[in-house]
Amino acid sequence: MTWIELVGHTGAFLTSVTFIPQVYKVWKTKSVNDLSLTMMFIVLTSTIIWLIYAVALMLWPVIVANSIVCFLSILLIYFKLAYTRK
Amino acid sequence: MTWIELVGHTGAFLTSVTFIPQVYKVWKTKSVNDLSLTMMFIVLTSTIIWLIYAVALMLWPVIVANSIVCFLSILLIYFKLAYTRK
Repeated sequence: MTWIELVGHTGAFLTSVTFIPQVYKVWKTKSVNDLSLTMMFIVLTSTIIWLIYAVALMLWPVIVANSIVCFLSILLIYFKLAYTRK
Repeated sequence: MTWIELVGHTGAFLTSVTFIPQVYKVWKTKSVNDLSLTMMFIVLTSTIIWLIYAVALMLWPVIVANSIVCFLSILLIYFKLAYTRK
């Protein structure tokens, strides 16, 4: 692995875990008032578009990273809608 | 431009604007309790790593997208720290 591949893999790993602390915080506090639902829908839409791109070009790190972010954004949208109703 | 390039550019555009609704919401409400500071620092770190990657490989759409997200994450960190102190 070259240094630039290592940088790319580090970036992909960090991007994958980006929303884990946010999901954890929301799950713990059940408070979602300050979170932007628009942001979450943009994240969901962009990950689906990146998945189309990555599947077409068979870019495995991009497929894995975006699958994780896509799943986490769906979780955040679910929490946002569930906890706002209260 | 091929369809796959168009998909990539659409993804890059959406990724760039991801945090705009969140920055706007925080700027309007001055409320940041539900936002994860850890998430913001992961976003900041990952965009810096992606910038190193993209500058080394001269990937202009990746450079532009990550510069915007990097700037927005710094703004969010500033808001989070400024409005939490109150």
